[in-house]
Amino acid sequence: MTDRIMIAHGGGGELTDRLIRDVIGPRFGLTALDDAATLPAPEGRLAFTTDSYVVKPLEFPGGDIGRLAVCGTVNDLAVCGAEPCWLTFGLVLEEGLPLPVFTRMLDSAAAAATEAGVRIVAGDTKVVPRGQADGMFINTAGVGVYRREPLPGEPAIEPGDVLLVSGTVADHGLAVMLAREDQPRLQSTLRSDVAPLASLIADLLAAVPGVKFLRDPTRGGVAGVVADLARETGLGLEIEEAAIPVRSGVLWAAELVGLDPLSVANEGKVLAVVPEEDAGRALKTMRGHPLGTQSAKIGRFIASGSGLCTLLTKAGGSRVVSKPYGEELPRIC
Amino acid sequence: MTDRIMIAHGGGGELTDRLIRDVIGPRFGLTALDDAATLPAPEGRLAFTTDSYVVKPLEFPGGDIGRLAVCGTVNDLAVCGAEPCWLTFGLVLEEGLPLPVFTRMLDSAAAAATEAGVRIVAGDTKVVPRGQADGMFINTAGVGVYRREPLPGEPAIEPGDVLLVSGTVADHGLAVMLAREDQPRLQSTLRSDVAPLASLIADLLAAVPGVKFLRDPTRGGVAGVVADLARETGLGLEIEEAAIPVRSGVLWAAELVGLDPLSVANEGKVLAVVPEEDAGRALKTMRGHPLGTQSAKIGRFIASGSGLCTLLTKAGGSRVVSKPYGEELPRIC
Repeated sequence: MTDRIMIAHGGGGELTDRLIRDVIGPRFGLTALDDAATLPAPEGRLAFTTDSYVVKPLEFPGGDIGRLAVCGTVNDLAVCGAEPCWLTFGLVLEEGLPLPVFTRMLDSAAAAATEAGVRIVAGDTKVVPRGQADGMFINTAGVGVYRREPLPGEPAIEPGDVLLVSGTVADHGLAVMLAREDQPRLQSTLRSDVAPLASLIADLLAAVPGVKFLRDPTRGGVAGVVADLARETGLGLEIEEAAIPVRSGVLWAAELVGLDPLSVANEGKVLAVVPEEDAGRALKTMRGHPLGTQSAKIGRFIASGSGLCTLLTKAGGSRVVSKPYGEELPRIC
Repeated sequence: MTDRIMIAHGGGGELTDRLIRDVIGPRFGLTALDDAATLPAPEGRLAFTTDSYVVKPLEFPGGDIGRLAVCGTVNDLAVCGAEPCWLTFGLVLEEGLPLPVFTRMLDSAAAAATEAGVRIVAGDTKVVPRGQADGMFINTAGVGVYRREPLPGEPAIEPGDVLLVSGTVADHGLAVMLAREDQPRLQSTLRSDVAPLASLIADLLAAVPGVKFLRDPTRGGVAGVVADLARETGLGLEIEEAAIPVRSGVLWAAELVGLDPLSVANEGKVLAVVPEEDAGRALKTMRGHPLGTQSAKIGRFIASGSGLCTLLTKAGGSRVVSKPYGEELPRIC
């Protein structure tokens, strides 16, 4: 085995076999090189999702592309109310990628899968010439099984329902951004929050069966989700700036680079809409989970008919929260 | 909507929404922008697979990356004996990709899904800076349902069993290679064979329940599959060069560029191992399908214990067929 990825590793010949057999397979517990994994017949409806990960840099404080690729897809299944079960792992590698970097990403993905309680059951490896794919891109697709009805979603949301968040916002996007080589060297203690939310969400759904809506505020941040929620429900949504947990270092970094923490991606947080009478129990449950200790109630739906989300600022003013256009923070996931 | 893909199309904001809502969603019949698709509880075990596609160029005679991404994953499910049902579609787009090229690829993928009888149920879009991703990379993951037992595979293969192929070999890899701009301009009539094999395979399995093994000879070609088969069964496998269907233009092109047609990728062919007494019925069934009119018996397993595949050449000689190392034909899928 050479110490770098070569074009021939993607050719589907002996060298591809060796890479899968010696490097990838053992880390994911894959022994067969078959075309597809065989899975038991699930007792329930399925959730099926996919995400490609093109984060730059590959490694950042608090995580890396391997952990991100597992957690992001696990979280997309969990917020639907499904139990994440199986993942596929599709690799596009850049020629010249150092093997130690590659194996660190694989080890990290395998550890995240164990942490999330899912199995990586099938994969694929392609190699593209130097200068493309920026080290590596990963696609994960995931299948989950519904042990309960899918969440009712936006149509069920009514005036009086409250919005909860499972902890501090904007950690991921800013940690990744400040880890880029082209950024000024900042003495930063920021860390990505990338984590699998399946067990926190399972706890929440067990304690509060009336949860109406869950969403992980990734690209587009909290702002993207709340603007969508207001528009799709046609209600007003008021959120309180003072109630939104943000680390002081994150606030400072966001100000420095001119970004609103509400529009910055998270990878280990969930937003939940619950009836007001369930809010106390929901918060207590979320705070009792290691990934939700700083959970907070941050907003409330009102019968305004505006379809807008309003931020009540610390200074006593208010502004409409709009969905980011899209180019504020490229390649953070 | 602009006429080219921009970085902001991948930012998860308004522009991403518009791309999904106006361009991608309608082509795949996707109306919701939810995190995951909800699928009915399947009556049977599942097959789950993934493949990333990095083919260069994006369009080639007989197909394009959109059709390839659907057919490749459909075929990986079908050769396991599962019925392909649902696909995800993960896009990594290069900044600057002309929108008309993008929409042609989407239309082609949608048409191939209809042809294959599968539904694209979820997707994801990322955008990377100019110079990366060579236009676009696509990942498709697929879920299929077993309506019967999974095929027994290599352990069931015995001396006397025969190897069938569903038509001419090497069409895809050579058509793609000759379509590259850096190749000498050849007046070529070569066309990729990229096609979904699910209905041909369903016909075959219905007519011949005793099929032992199926594989689509993609990267690594027929040579990769037959070398693996001999090694994994521990038997000898004799294949007859004169019996292997190859178009004359393909033979000529392969000679010109110095490639063995046996090691060149196919994307619309299947290799099948059946008991000798089933060979006639299997061939008749395959030839009765529009994608299998040139099906042929090309080899036989023998009790040699060598674990090697031997090619009996037209000239009356013989040589061992080995698995390609991997760098002969990069990026053909």
